[in-house]
Parts: sequence; C-alpha cells; structure tokens
Amino acid sequence: MAEGILSYHVDFEPIGRRGACPADNSLLEAARQLGVDLISLCGGQGTCGRCKVQLLEGHLSPATVAEQDLLSPHELELGYRLACQARPYSDVRLYVPPESLSTPQRLQIEGRDIPVAPDALVHAYSVQLSPPTLDDLTADAQRIVRALERQYSVRCKSVDVEVLRSASSCLRSWDWQAQVSLRQGECIALRTIAAPLLGLAVDLGTTKVAGYLVDLNSGQTLAQHGLMNPQIAYGEDVVARITRALQSPEEAQRLQSLAVQAITQLATQLTTQVGASPVDIVDAVVVGNTAMHHLFLGLPVKQLAMAPYIPAVSSALDVKAREVGLQLAPGAYVHVLPNIAGYVGADHVAMILGTAIWKAQGIILALDIGTNTEICLANNGEMSSVSCASGPAFEGAHIKHGMRAAAGAIEHLRLADARVEYHTIGDAPPVGLCGSGILDALAELYRIGVLDRSGRMHDHPYVRSRDSEREFVLIGEEASPNGLAITLTQHDVRELQLAKGAMRTGIEALLQANRLSDEDIDKVVIAGAFGSYIDVSSAIIIGMLPALPEDRFHQVGNAAGIGARLALISGEQRTLAQEIARRVRYIELASLPNFPGLFSQSMYLGEYRVLQKQ
Amino acid sequence: MAEGILSYHVDFEPIGRRGACPADNSLLEAARQLGVDLISLCGGQGTCGRCKVQLLEGHLSPATVAEQDLLSPHELELGYRLACQARPYSDVRLYVPPESLSTPQRLQIEGRDIPVAPDALVHAYSVQLSPPTLDDLTADAQRIVRALERQYSVRCKSVDVEVLRSASSCLRSWDWQAQVSLRQGECIALRTIAAPLLGLAVDLGTTKVAGYLVDLNSGQTLAQHGLMNPQIAYGEDVVARITRALQSPEEAQRLQSLAVQAITQLATQLTTQVGASPVDIVDAVVVGNTAMHHLFLGLPVKQLAMAPYIPAVSSALDVKAREVGLQLAPGAYVHVLPNIAGYVGADHVAMILGTAIWKAQGIILALDIGTNTEICLANNGEMSSVSCASGPAFEGAHIKHGMRAAAGAIEHLRLADARVEYHTIGDAPPVGLCGSGILDALAELYRIGVLDRSGRMHDHPYVRSRDSEREFVLIGEEASPNGLAITLTQHDVRELQLAKGAMRTGIEALLQANRLSDEDIDKVVIAGAFGSYIDVSSAIIIGMLPALPEDRFHQVGNAAGIGARLALISGEQRTLAQEIARRVRYIELASLPNFPGLFSQSMYLGEYRVLQKQ
Repeated sequence: MAEGILSYHVDFEPIGRRGACPADNSLLEAARQLGVDLISLCGGQGTCGRCKVQLLEGHLSPATVAEQDLLSPHELELGYRLACQARPYSDVRLYVPPESLSTPQRLQIEGRDIPVAPDALVHAYSVQLSPPTLDDLTADAQRIVRALERQYSVRCKSVDVEVLRSASSCLRSWDWQAQVSLRQGECIALRTIAAPLLGLAVDLGTTKVAGYLVDLNSGQTLAQHGLMNPQIAYGEDVVARITRALQSPEEAQRLQSLAVQAITQLATQLTTQVGASPVDIVDAVVVGNTAMHHLFLGLPVKQLAMAPYIPAVSSALDVKAREVGLQLAPGAYVHVLPNIAGYVGADHVAMILGTAIWKAQGIILALDIGTNTEICLANNGEMSSVSCASGPAFEGAHIKHGMRAAAGAIEHLRLADARVEYHTIGDAPPVGLCGSGILDALAELYRIGVLDRSGRMHDHPYVRSRDSEREFVLIGEEASPNGLAITLTQHDVRELQLAKGAMRTGIEALLQANRLSDEDIDKVVIAGAFGSYIDVSSAIIIGMLPALPEDRFHQVGNAAGIGARLALISGEQRTLAQEIARRVRYIELASLPNFPGLFSQSMYLGEYRVLQKQ
Repeated sequence: MAEGILSYHVDFEPIGRRGACPADNSLLEAARQLGVDLISLCGGQGTCGRCKVQLLEGHLSPATVAEQDLLSPHELELGYRLACQARPYSDVRLYVPPESLSTPQRLQIEGRDIPVAPDALVHAYSVQLSPPTLDDLTADAQRIVRALERQYSVRCKSVDVEVLRSASSCLRSWDWQAQVSLRQGECIALRTIAAPLLGLAVDLGTTKVAGYLVDLNSGQTLAQHGLMNPQIAYGEDVVARITRALQSPEEAQRLQSLAVQAITQLATQLTTQVGASPVDIVDAVVVGNTAMHHLFLGLPVKQLAMAPYIPAVSSALDVKAREVGLQLAPGAYVHVLPNIAGYVGADHVAMILGTAIWKAQGIILALDIGTNTEICLANNGEMSSVSCASGPAFEGAHIKHGMRAAAGAIEHLRLADARVEYHTIGDAPPVGLCGSGILDALAELYRIGVLDRSGRMHDHPYVRSRDSEREFVLIGEEASPNGLAITLTQHDVRELQLAKGAMRTGIEALLQANRLSDEDIDKVVIAGAFGSYIDVSSAIIIGMLPALPEDRFHQVGNAAGIGARLALISGEQRTLAQEIARRVRYIELASLPNFPGLFSQSMYLGEYRVLQKQ
C-alpha cells in the first residue's frame, strides 16, 4: 500500500482481527486482507446478502440500494450492513455475527439475549474490617463472618479451605478491605473490592467447546469464544472417545485433562478480553452430552459403552472446580446439569432450558443435530426425547470427499441448468464437502431426479463409474485446483440415508408415541452449530425434516449454550433443569417393537408421509 | 525354661504383648521378659508403688501387705495390683495404665471409656439394587438414591464425585449389593456390605501424634497407637515449625505433608490391626494446637507468629480428607475442632470436651502441660483459658543433661540420705534426664535446701563448679556408663524457673480474673502425656501446682484424644465443642497490667501464696 493513500483502522469483533483498510476498499476486502472469513456467495456483487456486519463505532459509506434491498429496516436501524457494499469513512469497530462467517470463525458462537432475571448463586459483599488488636483477637475468618453479619445481616456458615489458605495475607495486604463471594452461605472467594463477579458457562461438545463469560450481577454475556475440543485427537466421536478411555486409566485421565485444558483456555481468553483473570470466575456451569459429561468429571464410561447404556449419575452435580483441575476462584464450584440417559445428556437438558420449549404451548419439535442427534417433542409441556445415532456422515466422515468445515470445503451448493454453483469456506479453491454442502448435494441430486426415493443413482451426464462405483461429479478433475474431482458416490448416498433415516426415525417415534403426525407440529427448533448452517429446504427435500412451511423452522444456534448461561445466572433455572430432566420421558429407540420397519421407511428420500402411504 | 515348670499365658494390654510366664515369677519379671517397660523405682521391692497393673481376666496371687499399703481400697476393688508383688495363678489378661510405663510405650496412648451415646455423623445402609434393564435405565447413582428411599426412607441428596468415579464398576462387580455410607444426606462411600464403619480420631501434637480407631456404630475404640510427629526434624517446638514454614511455600508444604504422612501411617497401622484398611475410615476428627492445626490444613501461619497472634480461622472446619492429602473412604471428611486463639487451639477445646469440665460443678483447673501449656479454669461452667509459653525445658531442651523420654533417661529421682535414687526408661544405664526426672531433681534440690526460693544454688557436697557455673552432680563421672556426669546446673534451674513461672503465672491470672485463690480449687485436672507422668508432689514442692491435697489432682492422660473421639462419634459433641470454643474467655497474659509482677513472683520456688505475703 503506497504512502499517502488514506486508510482507516478496522476492528472486527468478537474475532479481534484489526488492521488498516484503504478508504476506497470495501469492508469485505478489508476482511479478506485481515483473514476474517466472511461468507460471500455472490462474490461481492451485493446480491447474496450473506456478508452482514454490524457497525459498533465509527462511520461507513451510506447504505447502497442493494443493502436497502437485502437488509430489513430493523437491521439497518441496528447498524447492519453488507460488508461488500460498505466502505470506511473513519476508523470503525464492527461486529461480525456468526452466520456471516465461514466455519472456522463460526466457533465464535453467538450470544443471544437471555430473558431471565439474574439471580446468581454467588453474591459479592464488600467489607471493611477492623484490624485485630490485643483487645480483639478474633480470627481472620471469623472477622469476615462478623463483618458480613454486621454490615449486611448475611450469614456466612463456612469458609472454603482454599480461601482460608490465602485470606490472612490478602486481608493484611488489602488494608482489611475485601470483597467476599458467598455461595449459599459458603465463602468461596476473597478478592479486592473492585474485582468483577464473573461466571463461566461452557457447552462442552464432542467437536467444539463454547464458552461464555457472564457478569453475574447483570446476567449479561461479556464475552464468548469457541474452540475445537482437543480430545478430537483421541477419537472423532463419542464412541471412539469412550473406547479410548477404556484402554487404560491413563487414557481416561488424559481425556479428562484435555477437556479441562480446553475450558481453562476459554476461561483465560475470555477473562483476558475483559481485563480480568480466571480467579475472577466465581461460578461455572458445564453442559455436554453424557459421555463428555462423564469424561470431563472423570466418571467411568464403561457402562455407557454397552447396552443398556447407563450413566454413572443423572442428577445435577456441584463439584469444586479445583477437584476437576479447573483453577477458577479458590472455592468456586462447577455446576453440571443433569443427564437424562446414556445418550441424552446435560446438553439436551440445556437445550430444552435454552429454548424454553418446556413451557411453550403447542407441539414443538426441537433437534440438536450432530454425530448424535437428540430430539425432544414438547407437547404442551409434556416432553419426550430420543437419541438417534445419526453418525458422522453429515460431518463429512465416511463420505468419499467429505471433510470438516475448513477452508476449501463446499458449504453451499446448487445445481442449476446442469451447472454446479457452490461456495467454499474462505472462498478457497474447493477441496471437499462439509456437512451443509453434503446435505445440499444430496437434496439437489434427489430434486433433479438423479437419485430416486430408494437412493439409487440414475444415469446423468455427470454420473460416471469409478472403482466399480457410480458417482456424481460435482467438481471435475479439470476444474479442481489439485486435479482431484469432488464427487458424491452411491456409497455416500447410502451413508447419508442411514444418517437421515436415524433422525427421521427419532422424529417418527416421538410423533407416534404422542399420537401425532407431521402437520400437528407447530414449530421446529433446530439447535446446534451444524443445524444452524444447513439449508432447511434441503433437509425437507430429502425428508430429514418434516415438510412444513419454512416459517415454522427456527435455527436458534447454540441453545445448549443459552441453557448453560441460564443455569449460570439463576438458581431457579438450575432447579428447572432438574425438573426438566425428571419430566422428560426418554424413549429408547432400540426397544421399540416397530423399530426395524420405522427405520427402513425413514431411509427413503423425500417426504416420509408419502412413503407411508405406499 | 525347663519342661515341667508350670507357666501361664500373660497378656499385657493395650500394648498387646503376650507370652508365657512361669508361675513363680512376678508379673514385673514377666513384663521384663516380654519387653513391657514397666516403671519400677524400688527395683521390685514393693515400696515405690509405680508398677501398677489392672487384672482384666484370670487369677493372681493374693494382694500382699505392700500392695494393701500402696494401693487405695478403691484401686484394689478395681483389680489394680503391683506387678512386682503379684504372680499368675492362671492365664491372665492385664491392663497396663500409661503411668506405669516408661516412655517408649507411653506412646501407646490409653483409651478411656467414653461415656457418650454414639451418634455418628456417618451412617451405613446395606442396599440390594435391581440391575438396569431396557425398561429401567435409571443411572447408577440414582439407583442407589432410589434404593435408600425405598428400603430405608432415607434421603440421599448428593453423591460425592469420588464415589461416582468408582460406583459403577463396584456395583457391577458386587452383584448390585452395596453398603452406602451417608453423611448428612451425602453419599461419601460405597463399600461391600460386610465392610466395617470406622472412624479415626487424631490428636496431632507438636511432639506426638496419637490415633484412635473407633467403631462408629458402637462408639468403641478398637485400636490406638501413637508415634512421633515427623515434623520434629523441622523444629522442636511450634515457633521453630512456624519459622520453618515461613521460609518458603515448599517448606510449609513439606510440614503439611509430614503431618498427613503421620496420620496416614496411623490410619494404616490401626486399620491393619483390625483387619480393615484406611478406605474403611468414613469419618475423621483431628485436634491439635492452633499451629499444628494450621500446618496440617495448609493454612498460613505468618499471622500466628507475630502479635497479636491471630488464627486464620477459629471455627470448626469440615474438609474433604482427600483435599488435605488423606486417603480415607473416597468422600470422607476430616472434622477439625475449633480454635480459641493463636495459642489456645483445637486440642484445648478437645481437652475441655474430653474432661467434661465445661459442665462440672465447682472450681476446676485443667492443665495441658507441654512446651506450651494451656490452662482452663472452669468456674461452675464459666470457663477462662490462658496459654503459657512454658517452653521446652521440662521436655529436656535447654537443660544441660536434659533429653527426650527415651531409653536411659532418668524419669524419676529421689534424694535420700545424700543418695540419688533413680529409675531410667528401659532400665538402661543413665544418660540424661527427661521431663519428669528434671522436675523431680528440681523439687528434691529445693526440698533439701540446695536451692533457695530464689533458685540460687547453695553449697553441698555434690555441688561443684564447672565451666564457671555451679552444678549439682546427680550421677558422677565414675558412676556413669559413658564417663560423663549427669548434673543440674544453676542455668538449668533458671530455665526451669522460667517454665514453672510461666505456668504459675497462668494459674494466678486465671484465679485473679475469677477472684479466687488456690484453696477454692476443687479439682486439678492434669492432661497430656508429660502431665500424666510427673510426680504431682514434686510439682507442688516447687510451686508449679497449687499446694492442695493430693486427692484433688487427677492425671487423666490424653484428654484431648478423648475429646477428639467424642467429636468423632457424636454430632452433638461437635456442636458442644463449638459452644465451648465460643464460651471460653481467653485471657491474653501479655495484655494483663500486672503481668511483670505476676511473672517474677511466680518464678520463686515453693508455694506461691507464701511468697505473696513477703
């Protein structure tokens, strides 16, 4: 960039990428230069409307016609802009919503409003103590207890031993002023009076770990961050992890440590963002599926690995953070939400809590799609849940050209006039298909008739045989940067049918158990990272989701993360979570008498209903 | 021993030494053959009355005239005998009271009856669970909770995380039968149905650590054992230990570990004795002086080391045993009794609890004599306590020929007709003086006029000068096995006056604060190991103890250990201990306006009262 050319400082949050942007460049160009991977299907033409950003500080060029077209008046009012259309008129600070990001940054999980009055379990009290004298020999801890009683009429029943280990020197170096954190009558931290009262909510997923730093006084989310679960190196799915943990106590210990390491990293990064440190975290909530829950707490997983898949514990737990190796405030607890069954865990409870479907009127279907898909049907507050072993196909595993959502993965795809249109993550040259791309490909092949309802692949100019298998060529060798074609094979289709069939079986089992059918469903809530990025219409086309009007579908992002935050800021919500776990009727698919028939019918592509009538 | 000579089996308890004794041998001879180190000053002549034993089972020769002379009718009624006088008439089982033992066995601290209905905090329930099936997918922990509810109508509110870590595999290998240990609604252990329900009470002394293994159902003491505090290598007294701990966090950590190591050793030895293991210990109580308490828990001691000597905490604490490094039952707690002040600790509370002086009528003075001597005056239930820095002189430190109570230490001594009569521990050749011997020597020198009331040493055939200091020769070079004399020097006398003066100051301060004088005292309770072995009359002669009739003195042994056991077997006693700690009025000697006068007067030898009149 030659000297003299006007440029502004652009700051993309919450990613935290910052740098100079020439005044005549669009924000999209700035983003690309700074490595912020904004989605753009139209290549910056202002037609796809995917590269939304929100102006937090500074000035931008006026909104273009394209923007007025693609953004709602409410969005414009909130400062939303299309990055490809807007140019900086000053230094600017921008918020990048997760849906505008390709997957790697999608880990920057979004924070939604939490409509619950904060009523955290931990409260802080600033006390001014009188120093000891020969006439007042009260012990340090009892001096604190006395001050709380006198200044706040609050009863402190016990002081955590770790707090005792540092209290005496702290009080003396702080001139007998301190902030006392009390949790149900137990003093769990002693900090300077200015220290913030922070809580950490964690959704410990098999693949991703999302952390939210919350102000326990206001209930506000101050920062959020996501990272890959480092356990991934020890197995991609839950079964692989359990198998690994069963190899030896050391392996189980290693998996436990890795989970703790990830949460520690989140705690450090998040608190650093707000100028605090992990010792300012006085309370934490962790949710995860039953296996993640067990591995994190160091609980045995052997009985989870074999029928009838029994959790070691299903009730909520309060464990001292230090007892699992987490270094937060000295006496802080980690609250772990209850599990429902071996394959319906605390994250499912958190999702139900986070989506509030437990109290909603009407028939609501809520799905958290992943390697394992948990589904809850709430029938005016009566809940039943199933777990479907949907497998990792939609995450790219066992698919010939499948891949994780990373640069170069095709994440959206359309077949138009025998032309394959696609968008890759990072706008990189295409190297494979990630989950949403795989779903789109399957749906498009079914839509144009290359696949029939049974999943058989018919002739088409793009269908060929390789290694005695039929495959549809999405990207030919000649168009591929590395000379390797990207295809969807007959075998891939079968794998995806199994995955789709598992989910659909779950939905049908829930409907049948409630004597309901598709049309009775008032609302379909799709939670989880994968579910947030899929094209619902593709999912409907293949029959994975019921064929309902699109406005009945709600892609809500990380609902489990919301549930975890609710439990973090409110004791009442923790009680509710226990109540939910107890109320949910768990349906074990394998024990249903009509399971084989249900499952084979569910594997057909297209609408389930139609097939039933066959 | 030639065949044909009649012999009986003799069993010395609680030491547990057993063996054959020829029918014409005395029990004293049997004791010596079996290595039971009974005290005998008169060499078996039946004149010193020190070799008392109690007949528990079997028959002995009739009591001799000497025994009728030296034992009270009450003692004779209880089966007390002099070992040198009695011969076995059958196989016999004998109880050896600690005061009859030389020091090494004194560590075998005695177990007295505990007159409190057992009401332990931990209860055990045997449950038979139904194994999980596809129709009953209840989690393992909730299966236990449900069984407790159904079989016992007992509510289990939580399961300790360490218990959860092993429960699943235990239940499966025990065929779904288990014994559940509940502590106030928390499941802290899961064991086989036959496992014993044990508790451990520990008196963590600066010098000795005494452990008692208790059956929590019956409240009975099953085994007891004592060992040296391994911290001794890091400082002989509390101040030295604190100084060491302040050198670095690593040193503090080392002292903490050593305390835990000693308790672990006790737990292992004691449970092995009853065919159990430390994991069968489901509850523990630890008492100790404030410094030992803090070092054991890893609490800071810096503020204990300087005026006004403030404890980090004074209330009772419940800490998970594993959190201090003790491996007992997985979720077991250690209960630590409350402290009163920086130098009046949980062991003092335990002593008050163990002697029950808190509820006794009349005026009772209770002393726990040691490097630090704590004294409580109970005035019809109103208690005041002081701590006296009596120093280690009476434990042999800073005394020219002082030594620990070990083989060869003179533990009792009399001057008769210018002849020194003495008894050494282990009947070994004399090599020095231990505490009780030092006290006797001081008293005898004062009694025969070698020392005047001011402590000045006057001429005497055995008084000589060495290294420009006067000293009284107790054992001359010619009579000594190693050619080294054993003497008491003028300097020694001064050290002892300081020690004696400190104790007496404490007594006087308490009497004055209560507007009482010596004669008002109805009972003097002397607790602790040293106090149990001293000759009360010697202590009276030098003015360390008030000149009261001997029947007002009660040497009760390890009262703190009794108190610890009371707290172990009864929640009510724990509440009482808290109540005692709160009710005791602590008098800080250093803050008394008349302290200097009181102290200088107290240093005079002889009766305090007389000196006051001077």
